[in-house]
Amino acid sequence: MGFAELWDSLLPVGRDPGTGGYRRFSFTAADAACREWFCHNALERSLRLQTDRNGNLWAHWDVPVGWPSDSTIATGSHLDSVPDGGAYDGPLGVAAGFAAIDLLRERGFVPARPIAVAAFGEEEGGRFGVACLGSRLLTGVLAPQAARELRDGDGVTLAEAMTGAGLDPARLGAGDELLDSLGAFVELHIEQGRALHGLGAAVGLAEGIWPHGRWRLDFTGRADHAGTTRLPDRRDPMLPYAATVLAARQAAASHAALATFGKVIPEPGGANAICSAVRAWLDARAPDEAALHRMVEQIEAAARQAADGHGVEVGVRLESFTPRVDFDPGLRSRLAGTLAGCGITAPVLPTGAGHDAGILAARLPAAMLFVRNPSGVSHSPAEHADPADCEAGVAALAAVLEELAGR
Amino acid sequence: MGFAELWDSLLPVGRDPGTGGYRRFSFTAADAACREWFCHNALERSLRLQTDRNGNLWAHWDVPVGWPSDSTIATGSHLDSVPDGGAYDGPLGVAAGFAAIDLLRERGFVPARPIAVAAFGEEEGGRFGVACLGSRLLTGVLAPQAARELRDGDGVTLAEAMTGAGLDPARLGAGDELLDSLGAFVELHIEQGRALHGLGAAVGLAEGIWPHGRWRLDFTGRADHAGTTRLPDRRDPMLPYAATVLAARQAAASHAALATFGKVIPEPGGANAICSAVRAWLDARAPDEAALHRMVEQIEAAARQAADGHGVEVGVRLESFTPRVDFDPGLRSRLAGTLAGCGITAPVLPTGAGHDAGILAARLPAAMLFVRNPSGVSHSPAEHADPADCEAGVAALAAVLEELAGR
Repeated sequence: MGFAELWDSLLPVGRDPGTGGYRRFSFTAADAACREWFCHNALERSLRLQTDRNGNLWAHWDVPVGWPSDSTIATGSHLDSVPDGGAYDGPLGVAAGFAAIDLLRERGFVPARPIAVAAFGEEEGGRFGVACLGSRLLTGVLAPQAARELRDGDGVTLAEAMTGAGLDPARLGAGDELLDSLGAFVELHIEQGRALHGLGAAVGLAEGIWPHGRWRLDFTGRADHAGTTRLPDRRDPMLPYAATVLAARQAAASHAALATFGKVIPEPGGANAICSAVRAWLDARAPDEAALHRMVEQIEAAARQAADGHGVEVGVRLESFTPRVDFDPGLRSRLAGTLAGCGITAPVLPTGAGHDAGILAARLPAAMLFVRNPSGVSHSPAEHADPADCEAGVAALAAVLEELAGR
Repeated sequence: MGFAELWDSLLPVGRDPGTGGYRRFSFTAADAACREWFCHNALERSLRLQTDRNGNLWAHWDVPVGWPSDSTIATGSHLDSVPDGGAYDGPLGVAAGFAAIDLLRERGFVPARPIAVAAFGEEEGGRFGVACLGSRLLTGVLAPQAARELRDGDGVTLAEAMTGAGLDPARLGAGDELLDSLGAFVELHIEQGRALHGLGAAVGLAEGIWPHGRWRLDFTGRADHAGTTRLPDRRDPMLPYAATVLAARQAAASHAALATFGKVIPEPGGANAICSAVRAWLDARAPDEAALHRMVEQIEAAARQAADGHGVEVGVRLESFTPRVDFDPGLRSRLAGTLAGCGITAPVLPTGAGHDAGILAARLPAAMLFVRNPSGVSHSPAEHADPADCEAGVAALAAVLEELAGR
């Protein structure tokens, strides 16, 4: 089967007809259809299917015994989406895994080491709020009991949702045996920015994942009548919030970093009332942790100064933090050499987004291949990659698997 | 009955035990209890009770016939509240009406013209979203059919809610006969700012109500990944929104006016996503319409400039507008003279808030008395007036009614 046909067969699954965006959330009907697509493609290729204890899917191209047990070369990504996400973020890496196997078999390649295609559960945190849920459980960085108690927006626990999907939440937990069988993990993913576009390259290699964190800022002022309270008598928390949004942009620019306010909740939120409080979330990412902390300190100082000027209190609380991930430099050099040997120049790029490969990197050599995204748009129905670039990604992945799983 | 006892008997009605704020919404149990309190106080004083066709309550102190039919001197205010409002906004004016009648009777005053105490329905728009609903219906500026179709947050229509409360929605409509019987309306209300506090006066007189309006601003950018989209590639609508909030404050200060953003909705509103859109509401008020429009134009220009700088579109739409109300200058002078004769200096103040007296002012001579609010806090459980100032307000209202309804 060609890549295009494989890809097109997944496109209708979980797509909202109104927005054109995807709503593939864990353990829903759309998720079941994605899993069925995975199983169908694994069986069609005579790959051995495995659902691990955390609900991650694996399709194994086994080889005769005799090789070390830690030699499986794994690829893959995830099939779930953010609300109204695009088609490529995640699924491209899974489909490319199957298509790369097709390409290798067409060439008559006989792997010396096992190859596996994986689809990790809930990478986006779209239903239960924890990103990389499946790979975090697999590597043991998320405790099974904490995971079972996670709730979706309707109050349904992960344990209940898993049970409803025919999985046993009692089996959740670290999969050391599975991890120990892996020799390397290479995730192919659509780029989530426009760097490759600028460099004129179809495919890139990941350098590392920027450290990133989420901070909650609570600006507390005083509710008052918007029509009668004189300006000097106001303690309006919307004003220091606005000043902080602008200060964050300036701080990000000066640190060559990223800072975003995408979520804000005014209280009580009436059009004719001065807010009693404004709750806001800062997403901040930078090339290194020192720069990240300097930037956030600068934003926090701006928030405090603006709040003081309006008689407003401000509380700042770290909600989550992910340290910097450096992908294995030896593996990256080897892949760069392989690609260069095929005439593919793959620029090395940092990224600000988390990925399952970043979680697995703590346990085994991991790498990532990026496919060009001409508009740079991500987490939106407008996300797009050209078919020729997808094919180039499949070819690069096949070359990499051939190198790593060859004799 | 003293004012304190009368006041205390209303305090527990519709008070939320958690916040300490009031939730007296039209045609609810709390509203029925407020109406019962009104009826009880009217009957206890042998006043003639009337529920007009729009559900406004009236308690009439009739006099023998022989006076012109347009001579009733009415006072009163409203009993409903904003969500988690204070105790004084509205009820103080109704309770003061009854207490002023008590004071006049203690003095042996015999009115030559009828006196009436009114409680208008839904002044705050807390359930059906239209401020001064009862007085707008009475004066015919709100069409009965449009009113019947108003819906609360649960989708219940005004017609259904009225029917449930035992009132007939088919009877809604202008009350010309009732309006024609009125010679003047004087509303006593807690001040919603701190002007009287600054002037050292317990009681003030209203000059007029500032023109005010509500504008909706839609900033439309592009949804993107907060972790991967480079700053120059972003079209983040939160940034021009923030710049507009700060510009609005500056514009208000430069026009000696008021501008407030109390309601903002980010879309999709995820902490790790650049917003596709930010929807915001501007509440703007100024001493005159020319200044109001100049200020809003300035804010709009700042919004457009900031939006342009970020590749964001901005749409600005007027949602509601209320022209300036000038209270009858002759009536105000007469009341000022009466109060001065009692040793009461009542400063004349403008106000930015709408009131039933402002609606009635289009049909008959109307005036307002303000009672000092030491903190200036309004539309909040922390709203407060000192008992001595409330008593001073009752005394001033009694003096005014004596003047207007006397021989």
